[in-house]
Amino acid sequence: MVGSVRIVGAGLIGTSIGLALSAKNIPVEMVDIDPASQALAQDLTGGVRIANPDLIIVATPLKALSVVIEEQYALNPNSTFMDVTSVKTEPIAVVEASKLPLRQFIPTHPMAGREVGGAHSARADLFLSRSWIITPTAQSDPAALAMVGELITSLGATAVELEPGAHDAAVAQISHLPQIVASLLASSLHGAPEQWLELAGAGLRDTTRIAHSDANLWKEIIASNADQIKGLLLNLHSDLEKMIASLNDQEKIAAMINRGRDGRALIPGKHGGKAREYTFVPIVIDDKPGQLGAIFNECAAMSVNVEDLTIEHSPGQLNALITVALSDDDAIKLSNHLSAIGWNVHPIRK
Amino acid sequence: MVGSVRIVGAGLIGTSIGLALSAKNIPVEMVDIDPASQALAQDLTGGVRIANPDLIIVATPLKALSVVIEEQYALNPNSTFMDVTSVKTEPIAVVEASKLPLRQFIPTHPMAGREVGGAHSARADLFLSRSWIITPTAQSDPAALAMVGELITSLGATAVELEPGAHDAAVAQISHLPQIVASLLASSLHGAPEQWLELAGAGLRDTTRIAHSDANLWKEIIASNADQIKGLLLNLHSDLEKMIASLNDQEKIAAMINRGRDGRALIPGKHGGKAREYTFVPIVIDDKPGQLGAIFNECAAMSVNVEDLTIEHSPGQLNALITVALSDDDAIKLSNHLSAIGWNVHPIRK
Repeated sequence: MVGSVRIVGAGLIGTSIGLALSAKNIPVEMVDIDPASQALAQDLTGGVRIANPDLIIVATPLKALSVVIEEQYALNPNSTFMDVTSVKTEPIAVVEASKLPLRQFIPTHPMAGREVGGAHSARADLFLSRSWIITPTAQSDPAALAMVGELITSLGATAVELEPGAHDAAVAQISHLPQIVASLLASSLHGAPEQWLELAGAGLRDTTRIAHSDANLWKEIIASNADQIKGLLLNLHSDLEKMIASLNDQEKIAAMINRGRDGRALIPGKHGGKAREYTFVPIVIDDKPGQLGAIFNECAAMSVNVEDLTIEHSPGQLNALITVALSDDDAIKLSNHLSAIGWNVHPIRK
Repeated sequence: MVGSVRIVGAGLIGTSIGLALSAKNIPVEMVDIDPASQALAQDLTGGVRIANPDLIIVATPLKALSVVIEEQYALNPNSTFMDVTSVKTEPIAVVEASKLPLRQFIPTHPMAGREVGGAHSARADLFLSRSWIITPTAQSDPAALAMVGELITSLGATAVELEPGAHDAAVAQISHLPQIVASLLASSLHGAPEQWLELAGAGLRDTTRIAHSDANLWKEIIASNADQIKGLLLNLHSDLEKMIASLNDQEKIAAMINRGRDGRALIPGKHGGKAREYTFVPIVIDDKPGQLGAIFNECAAMSVNVEDLTIEHSPGQLNALITVALSDDDAIKLSNHLSAIGWNVHPIRK
């Protein structure tokens, strides 16, 4: 395991890494160009001064990467370096143009974040159960790669290897396009009467949540991945034109909504891999302690594997609706068993 | 207060109203053209048969409104009627063309919903702290209006009066436009490699959540409000063109992101329906049968009431992150207890 880590950039990601490492008793030094951010991050993480860190994590904006790498490499020519930038082609080009040998640099991107930034928003568990992409180059030193992989695993994340170009295409689709769409949608609210906005529900709130993101962060991400993003925006532009032309045609509208619903279903659930088709068993239970435990004990006794669970319950309501997501076979097995021993099981559904 | 209510249409909205009313000991009858939906809704709400309901709530799709109103009016010529359709100009036109006198019909629209539909998704607290729009006409009977207003208040919602036309313009902006945008964004996921989608985080999930919505519901809503929606889509189309032209200009990108951030900030915090205030306990468990049951047994032993639960799991990972939603007090109690007996509990968060 890595012996000591310097983290340059005391924002959300950098400080969250610092918190997680210091919770594992790994000595951490938090460095930031802003003295207040650095002091807060050092305080939060119990950071110390480290003379020769094994690993230097550059967690600054992309535009600072070049300067930080030159500075840190001059100070610590034997350290391994990694970045956590949201794009990967450009940071690799930055390192290629610097004195830091490419073999000492491991490009990474943790798929975690919050719409709030800064050291004060940091959480040690930010990376738990998240994917963390590594985009090694042909020059990457195997020992450096192993150290970074081990660090990622120790933070509770799963390391995923991708080619730098494939990474940038993937994040354009799953992160940059949603950001631009949310920002444009939120922009459309300017000029709407206050009374209308007071009526907004969860749909508008969720759809625009990430519009709260930081413009200084995003202007860099979007500009540095413009080529990948452009194709996606052109497709959206053309789909929008089709939608405008179909507003009076219910069947075309239904086809578009269904296409969106099917697209949404491609985002995997619990296990990733395939978008798995679960079968759902609805069970009405009395709203009292012990009911959920009793159901899960039956699941364990029947060796059925619960993939997901929702609980619908309202204050003042004396029962609750539990919906358990299972494989098709497990759903039939559990439904029959629970019904036989007297539970109020409703028909399973896909 | 209203003495008895028949609800025609045992979908999400109808059944949620039924749950809330029966929790207040108001006799409810749930009626649906689909016998399984009707049976589930009657079971969940403790519904009974009612001969002469004071109020008939039509909670069917728009296209069924005309038939349901004729049928129900023939059976109950003295009842007050209300609808809960997502547009208001068209239902008023439907009633005007029917035998039901317009004075007996109160057009309403609760600003609540979920991306999942059906009786099984209903919640008695669906309307808590939500706005519920009433669009009276010049003919509306004051007593009928008062009954409906009182019902809305008793469900925990806030009645808001709007002109029918203003309603339709408002919902085009705050509901129909986000729906179309979410559907188009989710449509763009077709053809993306599976590995990319496995990397999707909360941003893509939230931005596309409502893309899961029902096409049969939305084709009606969009077509019946096409005029209002068209102008908004044309503006979005033009903003998208500007964005495409600005992809290499960091200052223009920043301006667009900031404009979105400012637009997002216009959505008020208090009025349009706030998320329930739960406290979250994150627990890392081994991904094997029996772990969930064991946790829920501890919940029962501690008499803490689990309000909701999410399970997060990355591809290839041997553990999973369970996040349990609880009241503030219960969260502290459960977190301390589970930690003390050796579970891997992370700091609670709001």
